Amino acid sequence: MNFTFELQKTCTVTGARAGLLHTPHGIIETPIFMPVGTQATVKTVSPEELKTLGAQIILSNTYHLYLRPGQELIKKAGGLHKFMNWDRPILTDSGGFQVFSLGDLRTISDEGVLFRSHLDGSKHMFTPEKVMEIETDLGADIIMAFDECSPYPCEYEEAKKAVDRTTAWAKRCKEAHNNSEQALFGIIQGNVFEDLRKKSAREIIDLDFPGYAIGGLSVGESAEIMYEVLDYTTPLMPEDKPRYLMGVGAPENIIEGIARGVDMFDCVLPTRIARNGTVMTSFGKLVVKNAAYKEDFLPLDPECGCYTCKNYSRAYIRHLLKADEIFGLRLTTIHNLHYLMQLSSEIRKAILEDRYPAYISEFYKKRN
Amino acid sequence: MNFTFELQKTCTVTGARAGLLHTPHGIIETPIFMPVGTQATVKTVSPEELKTLGAQIILSNTYHLYLRPGQELIKKAGGLHKFMNWDRPILTDSGGFQVFSLGDLRTISDEGVLFRSHLDGSKHMFTPEKVMEIETDLGADIIMAFDECSPYPCEYEEAKKAVDRTTAWAKRCKEAHNNSEQALFGIIQGNVFEDLRKKSAREIIDLDFPGYAIGGLSVGESAEIMYEVLDYTTPLMPEDKPRYLMGVGAPENIIEGIARGVDMFDCVLPTRIARNGTVMTSFGKLVVKNAAYKEDFLPLDPECGCYTCKNYSRAYIRHLLKADEIFGLRLTTIHNLHYLMQLSSEIRKAILEDRYPAYISEFYKKRN
Repeated sequence: MNFTFELQKTCTVTGARAGLLHTPHGIIETPIFMPVGTQATVKTVSPEELKTLGAQIILSNTYHLYLRPGQELIKKAGGLHKFMNWDRPILTDSGGFQVFSLGDLRTISDEGVLFRSHLDGSKHMFTPEKVMEIETDLGADIIMAFDECSPYPCEYEEAKKAVDRTTAWAKRCKEAHNNSEQALFGIIQGNVFEDLRKKSAREIIDLDFPGYAIGGLSVGESAEIMYEVLDYTTPLMPEDKPRYLMGVGAPENIIEGIARGVDMFDCVLPTRIARNGTVMTSFGKLVVKNAAYKEDFLPLDPECGCYTCKNYSRAYIRHLLKADEIFGLRLTTIHNLHYLMQLSSEIRKAILEDRYPAYISEFYKKRN
Repeated sequence: MNFTFELQKTCTVTGARAGLLHTPHGIIETPIFMPVGTQATVKTVSPEELKTLGAQIILSNTYHLYLRPGQELIKKAGGLHKFMNWDRPILTDSGGFQVFSLGDLRTISDEGVLFRSHLDGSKHMFTPEKVMEIETDLGADIIMAFDECSPYPCEYEEAKKAVDRTTAWAKRCKEAHNNSEQALFGIIQGNVFEDLRKKSAREIIDLDFPGYAIGGLSVGESAEIMYEVLDYTTPLMPEDKPRYLMGVGAPENIIEGIARGVDMFDCVLPTRIARNGTVMTSFGKLVVKNAAYKEDFLPLDPECGCYTCKNYSRAYIRHLLKADEIFGLRLTTIHNLHYLMQLSSEIRKAILEDRYPAYISEFYKKRN
């Protein structure tokens, strides 16, 4: 198995760590933010642009790819890497979060989840075994176990049931998975209940996966609650395995997640808000679509060195977005991804140089 | 004035010419196809991509830029080149064709055209003087005179009136224009009436412009009629000035236009059909969105060397288009622009080597 995690440095004050994740498609320097390419493309950008931005790994979605174009087609194409022309590592989620988010369109049983496609209403069944089959066909370097993500807010009993199913399904995933070129990560659930998170962590870690994710956060709870969950969950996770906080991408949540020992993050946030005309900057969010920027010839972030900021003004980008021009979406997406890639790499450097607490203070100071 | 046209070679059999057009932002090798950047961006692609594709000059639209973001803003930005980060030549049209296409939303008089914005219904007036002011503010290398484009089909009297107005307006444009860094081209109208085309050509050429366009073609008439008009119009045009056929971009029309002595072309066709999933290939059009290409792992055109064809399959591109992914639009746009850039450059080479007739035969043979 071509998959190992090398812990390089641990912060002496916070829980932050820097490491190297070895995968069949290359080494990932952690902590890392993973851009999301839901439908086998990170919206608006090319693989070459992603590389220039410093993306080391991207995420893609099992639910979406299963429905369209179908995992058989991707398998025939030689796998997801070849299909989409991306030769660096890929992580696929399990579709768990997506099918649970379908609401009335799905029914959960111990066997799995029966659901209707959001595209055409057709009926499908995801079981742990089926999901392993799909993720094997897609061929990502890191694949996620099929889990049950309870909603927020949620009754204790419902959250407990989801934890039990997540453990049972994680076992079935492990038994079904037999591709040594892919690392199967387990997912810890438990909603915002401390004993359930601890129970889930124990049970999942007992199954011995090469990496562990924390699922079911950033689904509506406050940042304080999220940090609290991390505070009592990450200490239970093995030091020598990567820790992945799913669905988190706001800069301050990344900063705080890393301080609590998380190594990997993914989120559609940077690309989605970019397409709505909101960009992340060293001084906080900027809504470039606003009238205030009509005649503003400064770059999005004067401190930023990305392609967008080196070549285009707020006025031009605002014009493109107002005129529904695709190039505007490209420019804001490039900027936001650059922001998070840069943030990850600065944080990693700070951890390696043992000055992460100072970095955090500096980060918050700039925003005030 | 930094604007000269150097005729390098004339085909010994057809009317085809190869030349060099010197402009303040560089030399353009003719014959040339000019990609259209209606709203200060060639839809979906970056300036760097355009350069890689070999684009030597792009066109932008006065009507659209006047309405949004407004020529004052672009002037404040330092002109269109700086605003959109394009340092090669630009040509702006006069907005004539656009305002006439507004139908019920406009009224034509000898003074100019009163029209309502297609964006918000606001009232505006374009006169030759106003258009010169706007085009000066935009700052393109080549700017077009304000003309009246009669519809197709059209009564003789209506077409004649448009020719008279076009001449009167061309005079007023010439008088109003006083920026030596911009070359003002005259436009020949006359619909599909031979005597009107000849009359318009005489009158416009009498005014002595550094270049001449043929307007009002490719508006619904058959290709045969278009070629007929070119057959009797281009021989009247001076040999030592560039000739520009407006709004033409189908490969066969370019081939035939060049054979009739045209040097410059522009059209939204390659970029527009690309976004609808249709690509231009050496063997004709291919609708990559069709189900036939679902599991087709060949490139769009196996003979093509563009970025898209080197890296992506029809199956992947079809998936992106079906899934409404912007990257799909980028890939088809890049391919189509490459096709026309490549076509122009191959044709130019064939003319310089005095084998254009053989090139034409070869072109048609591949499509049969």
